[in-house]
Amino acid sequence: MLPEKVSLNLSGQRFHVTYRVRGTDATLPVTAEAICVEQTVEFPRDLLPQGDIDTQIVGHMEAMTQADDSHWDVTISYPIEITGGELGQLINVVYGNVSIFPGVRVTNLNLPSDLANRFQGPRYGREGLRTLLGVTDRPLLCTALKPMGLSSQELANLAYEFALGGIDMIKDDHGLANQPFAEWEERVRLCADAVARANGRTGGRTIYMPSALGTSMSLRERAILAKSYGAQGILVPPGIVGFDTVHQLAQDDEFGLPIMSHPSFLGSFVTSQDNGIHHGVLFGQFMRLAGVDASVFPNYGGRFSFTPEECTSIIHGTEVPMGTVRSIFPTPGGGMTLDRVPEMLQMYGPNVILLIGGGLFRGGSIVDNTRRFLDLLQ
Amino acid sequence: MLPEKVSLNLSGQRFHVTYRVRGTDATLPVTAEAICVEQTVEFPRDLLPQGDIDTQIVGHMEAMTQADDSHWDVTISYPIEITGGELGQLINVVYGNVSIFPGVRVTNLNLPSDLANRFQGPRYGREGLRTLLGVTDRPLLCTALKPMGLSSQELANLAYEFALGGIDMIKDDHGLANQPFAEWEERVRLCADAVARANGRTGGRTIYMPSALGTSMSLRERAILAKSYGAQGILVPPGIVGFDTVHQLAQDDEFGLPIMSHPSFLGSFVTSQDNGIHHGVLFGQFMRLAGVDASVFPNYGGRFSFTPEECTSIIHGTEVPMGTVRSIFPTPGGGMTLDRVPEMLQMYGPNVILLIGGGLFRGGSIVDNTRRFLDLLQ
Repeated sequence: MLPEKVSLNLSGQRFHVTYRVRGTDATLPVTAEAICVEQTVEFPRDLLPQGDIDTQIVGHMEAMTQADDSHWDVTISYPIEITGGELGQLINVVYGNVSIFPGVRVTNLNLPSDLANRFQGPRYGREGLRTLLGVTDRPLLCTALKPMGLSSQELANLAYEFALGGIDMIKDDHGLANQPFAEWEERVRLCADAVARANGRTGGRTIYMPSALGTSMSLRERAILAKSYGAQGILVPPGIVGFDTVHQLAQDDEFGLPIMSHPSFLGSFVTSQDNGIHHGVLFGQFMRLAGVDASVFPNYGGRFSFTPEECTSIIHGTEVPMGTVRSIFPTPGGGMTLDRVPEMLQMYGPNVILLIGGGLFRGGSIVDNTRRFLDLLQ
Repeated sequence: MLPEKVSLNLSGQRFHVTYRVRGTDATLPVTAEAICVEQTVEFPRDLLPQGDIDTQIVGHMEAMTQADDSHWDVTISYPIEITGGELGQLINVVYGNVSIFPGVRVTNLNLPSDLANRFQGPRYGREGLRTLLGVTDRPLLCTALKPMGLSSQELANLAYEFALGGIDMIKDDHGLANQPFAEWEERVRLCADAVARANGRTGGRTIYMPSALGTSMSLRERAILAKSYGAQGILVPPGIVGFDTVHQLAQDDEFGLPIMSHPSFLGSFVTSQDNGIHHGVLFGQFMRLAGVDASVFPNYGGRFSFTPEECTSIIHGTEVPMGTVRSIFPTPGGGMTLDRVPEMLQMYGPNVILLIGGGLFRGGSIVDNTRRFLDLLQ
């Protein structure tokens, strides 16, 4: 039997989520009420015990404004206690079940400091990463080891050349896993060694961040193993390994290295105007809460579909105040070429990591191309 | 420098993914080629070394048939080696980057046995779960402890009543995490104890599966801790903890209990006809490959948007042959009521877990309602 009445000792502090809801004057209140219930008690409201479950736990509709002919912006608040201060459950409340509602999209997330401060957030963030790399104010340059199909030694040779050219960061292409032609452990070891040798020769501080996919062990075990081989960071796809899992790793002091996120398998959240999560919330705020230091996303004008406005919203999400949670680097990639650098600098300013892959292979040696690209960033 | 030519010693075995692609006669070949490159080498094709990377690693366009005026079904094959036999990387290849393409949706996944057999899959599956529960041929009945806001003791009292009524499985509502009014460890302990006491009284075999979200530790640590408190399975949201992470847990012999998946945060993959992953692939095949034994999804005719055809495709996905990977239970929930049971039996047949929440609280005691529901399933 359910109790007749429930009193809870809640703080009264609430966090706010704005949903863009498709509908009409008639359907809108129904959908808004459905979100309030679905994201919390998932229970017929008439059967709820009297008291705080009904009045406090169930979401509150705080504001409703019309966005266009068929869409409304509906802001709903939830008590901070229902997250338990955990990222997995925060995501669950923000967009767990209503992700299945076709006409409901998350457009804004507003956490009070008391909730945001429960999250350690990025260990490095913009400032920490700059200190680690010894680069005070210019944009950072990152490349990816590719194409899939090269041997570990061939990939390590590329890493050596990029590092000789003075690049700031080298990551595995996100498709490098544990393929028989370049097994994960061998690759991580050889590439980390190659970067260390090049750094020894140049006095540089290039870091190597292998992909986290590729072995039959947990993300944490892989990350610690990569560190033991000399990797100085890790590339993770939160869509595949889970935001919750990334969050655990980021808090792990034994690991303690920078984390770069890859957008793989997250595209379906941002390809529809009528469902999903706005770019800045997903690739900015969620990544920061998960403890990511640099968030890779598809640059506009490349081979993907993001608009300049969507990329601007990501910049905003990487730095919008959230209690003590640090700002991180937006890391646009895809279709980056030397001749687009001035445009990129204008768009992103200095606080960006430019991710360039194929573009550093075209028309010259890797070392020369890397130096030329870096010169443009000074 | 890239090598000029690369020879790889590949088996020649390939797996097939069918994508529904929006486009015209003119754009279609461009999109198909883009998928072949994007999901593998992510590299300008003209710069690739000669040999096997270009001819084998890059996806092969195997078939293309027109689906309607603006959509085509494009089947692309990839060498099984590029998955490294890992689920995370398989997902990465199937739909990592192209999830960001607005007009590309996964509609079919076909793995040769040599690849499917690399996955241990569900530890229990349909047969194992039936043996565990001692139910040979009727549909299984599951409920969820709710609403959020009850104390651990109040939730345990509900669990006791459901188990007294003889229900097969009790899971936490997926929104129960580590809230101050029902802390995770206390709740798991009290609910597991309550179910054990009820089983002792009835001689029944009800199992309790707590939610995996809710503590600052890894999924594995939470799952093992839950087991130590007497839980006999676990409820996981792969959308939040990651398919890759669930896959690790399912292979963990120290855990070794049934896994039920929850669709939270996965809705955006199935709300669009032009992007995402078909229901049967996502809630059937992906869950099985991840080692899930029972896959929860929104039933048609409830408060969500799935159609009967989409639910039928999930049934198919839970049992379509995939090497040695076991069949699992489709677990429809949402809006389940006693009067819908005959319709559910006709739709799903005996190999289903019916998930009913609020419906067992209405019009009678929990024990009586549970017994009445079970009677309908005999």
